Amino acid sequence: MTSEIRQNLATRQWVIIATSRAKRPEDFQPASTAERELSGRDESCPFCPGNEHMLPGITLEVPGPGPEGWQTRVVPNKYPALTHEDDPQRYSRGIYTAMPGYGQHEVIVETPRHDRDIPQMSVEEVGILVETYHQRYVDAMNDDHHMMTIIFRNHGPMAGPSLVHPHSQLVATGIVPRAIRWREEEANRYFDDRGRCVFCDILAFEIQDRRRVILENDTFLAFVPFAAEVPFEVWVVPKRHQADFGDISDEEKAGLASALREVLAGLHTKLRDPDYNYVVNSSSRHQAGEPHLHWYLQIRPRLTIPAGFEIGSGMAINPSIPEEDAAFLKADGGATE
Amino acid sequence: MTSEIRQNLATRQWVIIATSRAKRPEDFQPASTAERELSGRDESCPFCPGNEHMLPGITLEVPGPGPEGWQTRVVPNKYPALTHEDDPQRYSRGIYTAMPGYGQHEVIVETPRHDRDIPQMSVEEVGILVETYHQRYVDAMNDDHHMMTIIFRNHGPMAGPSLVHPHSQLVATGIVPRAIRWREEEANRYFDDRGRCVFCDILAFEIQDRRRVILENDTFLAFVPFAAEVPFEVWVVPKRHQADFGDISDEEKAGLASALREVLAGLHTKLRDPDYNYVVNSSSRHQAGEPHLHWYLQIRPRLTIPAGFEIGSGMAINPSIPEEDAAFLKADGGATE
Repeated sequence: MTSEIRQNLATRQWVIIATSRAKRPEDFQPASTAERELSGRDESCPFCPGNEHMLPGITLEVPGPGPEGWQTRVVPNKYPALTHEDDPQRYSRGIYTAMPGYGQHEVIVETPRHDRDIPQMSVEEVGILVETYHQRYVDAMNDDHHMMTIIFRNHGPMAGPSLVHPHSQLVATGIVPRAIRWREEEANRYFDDRGRCVFCDILAFEIQDRRRVILENDTFLAFVPFAAEVPFEVWVVPKRHQADFGDISDEEKAGLASALREVLAGLHTKLRDPDYNYVVNSSSRHQAGEPHLHWYLQIRPRLTIPAGFEIGSGMAINPSIPEEDAAFLKADGGATE
Repeated sequence: MTSEIRQNLATRQWVIIATSRAKRPEDFQPASTAERELSGRDESCPFCPGNEHMLPGITLEVPGPGPEGWQTRVVPNKYPALTHEDDPQRYSRGIYTAMPGYGQHEVIVETPRHDRDIPQMSVEEVGILVETYHQRYVDAMNDDHHMMTIIFRNHGPMAGPSLVHPHSQLVATGIVPRAIRWREEEANRYFDDRGRCVFCDILAFEIQDRRRVILENDTFLAFVPFAAEVPFEVWVVPKRHQADFGDISDEEKAGLASALREVLAGLHTKLRDPDYNYVVNSSSRHQAGEPHLHWYLQIRPRLTIPAGFEIGSGMAINPSIPEEDAAFLKADGGATE
């Protein structure tokens, strides 16, 4: 078989697994500039301690053990895509619909250290980061006008323009984008058909099948999805059913921190610090607590470039085999418990 | 207003027009290596005349005036994402669904000249290219197992890995990807509500509004869509209602060739040869001839990098204003008739 087309069970989207174009995992060159030479502090970096005058403000600081007194720091985005200036009311522009850019856009500085990326952090430090995600997520969703909150991280130049100091971002919007609704509608249909959450079914199957599992701990499973859209895509999914990231427990925060750090350390070591994005896919407002949805953290390395076919079809061509990607990432790391 | 969120009337997908992050059109640097120094023939290029032994075969040649005897040449893709080796039958893999990579993947060499891109071609030469698209599209859809045929072009290194000799690609698949169905379902719903094709409504509105129009001829309108997802996105749409690219008339082929060449020449000159993808978005099988669908050619320059927010939300952040983009592209070109 030259290639296989696989269906994402949750979204019913198809992906071409192009085995004929497949490369060995070792053949993927990181798209970014291999070694990043960074020092602990950069004079021109607004996220470094001592450069607070370069920030538009400080929303929150979570204490840490270092001399700075803080481990994570939340600051408004200096060039926000969305703000609270106007109400989230729709209006017409001719035949079209539009609305003001209502929402919240902030930066989560992950560490005082300019050169300390997640793989170099302790599990406790990553735990504080997850705790910060959770606090800001809950805070954002306390605004009734926020329909959806997305937490994401862009790592490396191919993953989007950004400052190099380790940071994540949070965006809350006054609408639910159509693509999110599509995912929810498919999950709802699956639940109506089977009476079970599609993500819970995927978890149960992957835990038993094991070919795509990278690691498992008490609360989380990390695996390459069956219909991965890009090489080395990884989903980190809570084993307990929960639609909303806001519902994560303290034990789960620790489990997520441990799993996230280990997966990113594996990517860093085995693929030589590839560029990637990760995003927390949580439920939109009014879907929180629903039995058909299940939040997950999705990591997408940027080793390939989507082209015209992907734009036209919405269907990815993945030149690697999910089972081989998982085996490569798992090797000599493997299940931690 | 810091930004505006606009809804694509056809897909109901939302786009953040981030006016606060907006750049002037002149500020967009092409992501690619500005000037491409190419000669008319390249010894190592399989698409150049005299290198036929490097091709896996020749499917079709359309005659041209040059000494080579052909203007366009259709060849199988040497590393096809899809083939006809296996039947397009679905099967189960555990709880998942998959199918063989059934389909067709071919390359349309657009000219014998290694260095002759569309803006340098005559309208007649682009007309032969459109004619070749049409012949191959009709041929691909004659296979009853092909549910959808996509013609696309990747230009420049940021637009996907490919050979530099001017060429397009055709992919026919044995399935309709979910993203295509979503577009069709939204168009169908619009038709059920209003009794009109949403694309025909958009055409009528844009022709009257004119702020986003780049050029208009007897048969085609080129405009920046109201909810453009990337800077300088352009849609080239037939004015006559037709769901299927296969239904294009000879007069429309000439109109498309003229519009496409002029839009691409404008991008080339005004944005200094930016990388881009274009794709012919036609209807899937069984939707051809439907009153709610309308094919169009979509051009997406690659001047920005989608990041974590776009991956998580499916919603683009466009840092330019569609009306300004259109004015910039239209300046001293403008409507041709």
